[in-house]
This record gives sequence, structure tokens and C-alpha cells, in this order.
Amino acid sequence: MYELLKVCGRAKRGRLHTVHGVIETPVFMNVGTAAAIKGALSSMDLKEIGCQVELSNTYHLHVRPGDDVIYQLGGLHRFMNWDRPILTDSGGFQVFSLTELRGKIREEGVTFSSHVDGRKIFMGPEESMQIQSRLGSTIAMAFDECAPSKADRSYIEASVSRTTRWLDRCVAEMKRLNQQEETINPKQLLFGINQGGILADVRMEHAKRIAEKELDGYAVGGLAVGESHEEMYHILEVTVPLLPQNKPTYLMGVGTPENILEGVARGVDFFDCVLPARNGRHGHVYTNAGKLNLWNERYKLDDRPIAEDCQCPTCRHYSRAYVRHLLKAKEMLGMRLCVLHNLYYYNHLMAEIRQALEEDRFEQFKLQKLEGYHANAKSL
Amino acid sequence: MYELLKVCGRAKRGRLHTVHGVIETPVFMNVGTAAAIKGALSSMDLKEIGCQVELSNTYHLHVRPGDDVIYQLGGLHRFMNWDRPILTDSGGFQVFSLTELRGKIREEGVTFSSHVDGRKIFMGPEESMQIQSRLGSTIAMAFDECAPSKADRSYIEASVSRTTRWLDRCVAEMKRLNQQEETINPKQLLFGINQGGILADVRMEHAKRIAEKELDGYAVGGLAVGESHEEMYHILEVTVPLLPQNKPTYLMGVGTPENILEGVARGVDFFDCVLPARNGRHGHVYTNAGKLNLWNERYKLDDRPIAEDCQCPTCRHYSRAYVRHLLKAKEMLGMRLCVLHNLYYYNHLMAEIRQALEEDRFEQFKLQKLEGYHANAKSL
Repeated sequence: MYELLKVCGRAKRGRLHTVHGVIETPVFMNVGTAAAIKGALSSMDLKEIGCQVELSNTYHLHVRPGDDVIYQLGGLHRFMNWDRPILTDSGGFQVFSLTELRGKIREEGVTFSSHVDGRKIFMGPEESMQIQSRLGSTIAMAFDECAPSKADRSYIEASVSRTTRWLDRCVAEMKRLNQQEETINPKQLLFGINQGGILADVRMEHAKRIAEKELDGYAVGGLAVGESHEEMYHILEVTVPLLPQNKPTYLMGVGTPENILEGVARGVDFFDCVLPARNGRHGHVYTNAGKLNLWNERYKLDDRPIAEDCQCPTCRHYSRAYVRHLLKAKEMLGMRLCVLHNLYYYNHLMAEIRQALEEDRFEQFKLQKLEGYHANAKSL
Repeated sequence: MYELLKVCGRAKRGRLHTVHGVIETPVFMNVGTAAAIKGALSSMDLKEIGCQVELSNTYHLHVRPGDDVIYQLGGLHRFMNWDRPILTDSGGFQVFSLTELRGKIREEGVTFSSHVDGRKIFMGPEESMQIQSRLGSTIAMAFDECAPSKADRSYIEASVSRTTRWLDRCVAEMKRLNQQEETINPKQLLFGINQGGILADVRMEHAKRIAEKELDGYAVGGLAVGESHEEMYHILEVTVPLLPQNKPTYLMGVGTPENILEGVARGVDFFDCVLPARNGRHGHVYTNAGKLNLWNERYKLDDRPIAEDCQCPTCRHYSRAYVRHLLKAKEMLGMRLCVLHNLYYYNHLMAEIRQALEEDRFEQFKLQKLEGYHANAKSL
């Protein structure tokens, strides 16, 4: 199912075969929280900008329009007309971060209030698997608690321990659901999630525990939530080597192009982040020489594309001056063109990374990219 | 330049040859006020949905980003990357409707405040032609006053008389500008505008006056501003026959599909309106059986496209249920998909009208369409 095509240091070049097609890794998943990419991008656009995997949020779809609605409409792939792989998160992250319920977590699961209509919802490992099964995603994520990295050791240890017990319940429930006749995707994959904040020993112990459980993939969760980049890289260095190398590794919610290059160097296959789309909506766009802020006066008469060497739909057709005008005139098209560019940039970066890995020059490629980001950002 | 291909009663099937290509009429122009269609549509999208002519607003582009900026960037076509015809209005309508300046109109022109930064701007016939020349549109509109239809006869008569004098200044200035070496489009066309509120005799007298002036086309302005549909149709019936049949006729700012069918029947070639894009942004979408409000609960599980027989990008790929979800989740994509559908609907309606005219069955086609709009709207 997962082919490890090549290893360069810790970096992996892999290929995950799924019922919805092949995923070439390292890969960046494009985040479409509510079954749509913010910035008015459609699933047709995702194809045009080279997206391999779309990521949707279980919590958001559960509260609106409801996983029952999406199930009745044939599942998420059909709902949003996307025939390539989809990863759904477990809902846990939103449940814990959108609601104020520390202390209300029980062994069974969590009760929280919908941000849409305030109604009380219960979610535990079984419920999360059931929702993701009804959505019919390609890859489901285990239900975990993303404990605050500032929490004390005793809290984190208890939380991680519960997350391990929840994982067993996820595995059992997913197995049961995949055997149901009415299941939309009976080959739904399940990834487990490593937790432990920035406590290296807890992370390592937990990594060993979940590595034993023959999952389809392994994520490192609970990072990029306030710790420093160095702390994040250190956790990856001690944790990833304990996860099975012959399974995909996913660093959740990360990050900048720099973070991604460093993550790949530490053995990560899968990434996702809202950053490129959010930056795009604010007119901040990526180039190999750093980010540009298209609101800047200096682009008023700049007839060049955002990036001279970019083949995205925006750069092929429109100038910095035009996009800047659209942003200033509050035309939605301005945000859309910036998001198209940024996601293309990320997807293309991953393609470049894969090629560099294949050609045994990833380390050199990485240094060159980092140099570009740091050296020239001010010169554009 | 304008070929009259066919006449059916008063209805005309025409073809206008321009430096930016041929316009098959009757045509609906898609409104991109600030050089972009609201709803995040790009010029690439406009091609996909069959737009022949894009319409931009001189006033808006003059205040932001400035016609000097667009001129330096090579003109509006290059700025927004649209190689087909563009019509620019004169700025007059916005100057008179966005600003409170009744009484401040002088023979020379009008002084008003920018809605962007409040600075004082003077615009008269020469300034309007100069701005439109710098934009380099295919068709420029004469600078006129669109007097309030409720104004008294003496005001309207004086206003129309001034508009006629302004037209002579527009003609002279456009001639001069088209001879300048640095002009972006030295073959810029100029359409005159008939005014007179709902006073049939003033309209008719004015139509005769401007018909003498060998213009590239003739518009009927100042309608769809509060009068009844019957009053509008009556004005068309008495005015259009006095305008040259061998020149294109343009009904400004109109309207619903019903209005367009009635306008074509009365000899109109060109239409424009913000309605389909605005309705789309509100989730109101057109079908041959009337408008649907996609916010309605009844579409929650509706797997059908907006219109079963529609070939627009939205209907080819997405369901009513999905679009409804996007609208409710406040995803920009929802508005975008509705606007794509609505503008396609309008552009396609015009293609159907042209074909019906060619096949000598326009009257029958019109009745059938009107029947559909009225009969079935509630049944969907």
C-alpha cells in the first residue's frame, strides 16, 4: 500500500496507493475545511493547481451540513466532485480548540457545543470513526486529544495515555465500519496520531506504543501550536525514527515552506496547513525569494507576474499591478488569484522536493531554497 | 462595421465588427465594474461562460486604480487580460447617482467627490472621452446626464438639450483622441445616448437629433430606474424606430430575462445589467422555469444541478445541495458558482435568441420562454 521509493538521510520519497488513486510523497494537502477551499476555489481549480489530496474537517462537516446529509448524497467525494484522495481529520482538534471544555473530557469522549447553533454534541472515538466513515474519506484520522503544550507533565501523560486507549477503540470501530455493507468507502485507511507536547520522553514512549499497532500511517500531532521551530524540529528528530519507516508519516498543521523542507529532511511524507490560503486572502504571496505583500504601493505599476517562473493560473494571466488593484478594490477575485498562486506554489514546491529526492540532491535543494527565502525577500 | 443580418418584426440579428473581434447581437454584456466581475470571476472564466463583451465603469476605474495607471500598463484589455471587446460607460451615471450634486451641473461638466478618498474631481464630455481613451475600450459611451425620471418637464428638457450639446463635444474630442499617436485604441467607437425620462415626445425629439450624428451606435439610457416595465417598453416602442436601424441599439442597465426578450422584440441589440451577478451572490439562480433560491431547505438533499439542461461549469460539476451548503457555510465558492451559472444563463439565452431569430421563430421562442418563467417557478 505504501511504497518507500527512496531514502536520503532521513528524508523519504514514497507512494501511497489508495482506492482514490496514488499519492506521491512528500505531499502537501490542500485544506478545504467545509468541503471547499477558502478563496472561492473549486475542485476543478484544485486539479489545475496540482493538488493531490484535499483535506476536510470532520467537525465542520458534522455540524454543517451534517455527515448524514453528505452520506445521503453519496459521500464527500461526490458532494464536492473530487475524485482524488481526501483526508479527514478526527474532529478532535476543533472540539478541543473551539470549545472551552478542559475538564469535561471523559474516558468515553467529549461533549461540546456546536459553533453553528449551540446544540450539544457528543464525540468519542467511535463517533469520530462513524462520521468519517459516513463522509467516506480516503484516510481517516484517529480521535485524539491535542493537549495544550503548556499543560503540566501529569496532565499530558494522562492525556496521551487516554489517546492511546482511544486509538484502540478507533481501530476496532473502523474495522467494524469497513465491514458494513452500506459503507461508502470500505477501504478507508486509518492513521494514528502521536502526542506528548514538547516532552521528548512522552513523545518517544507514545510513538513506540502506537508503532506496534499496524496502522495505515502515523501522524505527529500537537505541534505548530505555539512552541518554537527548534522545539518542533527536535520532537520530529526523536519521534519520527520510532515510527515505522515503511508507513507514511504526517506532520499535522505544518507549515511554512521552511518548515516543510525541514520536515521532509526529518522523514515526513504528509503536510497540511491553512497558511498559504490564509496568506493569499491577505494578499501575501509566495516566491522563491520570499513573500510579497501585494498591498504595497511598489506594485502599483508592476506589470510582472507574482513570480516570473511560476506556471500557476494567476501568473500565466495576470500582473502584480492587476492583483493589487483587485485587493484594494475589495474584489473577491483578488483573494482568489492570490490563493490560487499560493496553493500552486506549495504543490509545486512538493513536486520539486520529490524530484530533488529522486535525483539525490535534496539537501542541496533545501539549502538553496532556504537561502532564497532569507536573502532576497526585501529586494522584490 | 455593423451588419444587419436579419430583421424579424422589429427584432434585429446583427454583427458588429470591432478591432477586438466580432460581436454577435443581440448580446448581453457582462458587467465588471472595477475591471473584475463580482463573485471572483476572472477573464478566463468569462471566456468559459460565453461572454462576448465585458463592460467596465469609467467612474470606478478613474478613481481606482486611475486611468493613468491602466494607460501606463497598456490599457484595460491588457490590465485585465481580456482580448475581446470591452464597452466602457461614460462615468456620467455614477457621477450623478453616487454623488449628491443636483444643481452643481454646469455647461462645462460636473464636479464631484470621489467615493474612495473624497477628493474633488471634475468631469465633462472631454474628460470622459479622455479617460475612456486612456482605458482603450472598444466602445466608449457619450457623457450624458441621466436625469431623474421623476424630475419635472422643464428640468428634463433642459437636461436633454445639454446632453445633446455634450454629445457634439464628445464626438469632437473622440475624433481628436483617435488621431493621437499615443492612443491605445485609435479605432475606439462612440455610442450616443438617448434621454428624456418617460416623456415620449422629449425622447422622440432627442432620438431624431442624435440619429443625425453618424455615431457608431445608439443607446437608450435612463430607463430601468424606477418606471414600470410598461413605461419602459412604451419608450422603446416610440424611440427605437427613430434610431438608425443599420447601427447597433443598446438598452442600458436592463434587465431581467423577460425585459431582454421584450427589448429584443423592440429592436435592441445590446444589453447590460448587474442583476444576474448580484442575484447569484445572493444564491438566486436562473432556470427556464424561473429563479430558485438556493438557501431554501428544499435543496438540502437535492443532488440535481441547478438546471438539468445547463452546460455551465457549475451545473456540469456541482449539485444544488453542494451549492446550498457553500452559501450557508459562507464559503466564497458558493457565490462564485451561482454567478458563473447566472452569467452563463444570460449569455446562453442570448445565443438562443440569436438562433431563434435566424430560424424565423423568435416570437414563438419568446412566448415559450415567458411562459416557462411564469408557470413553473413555484414547482422546483
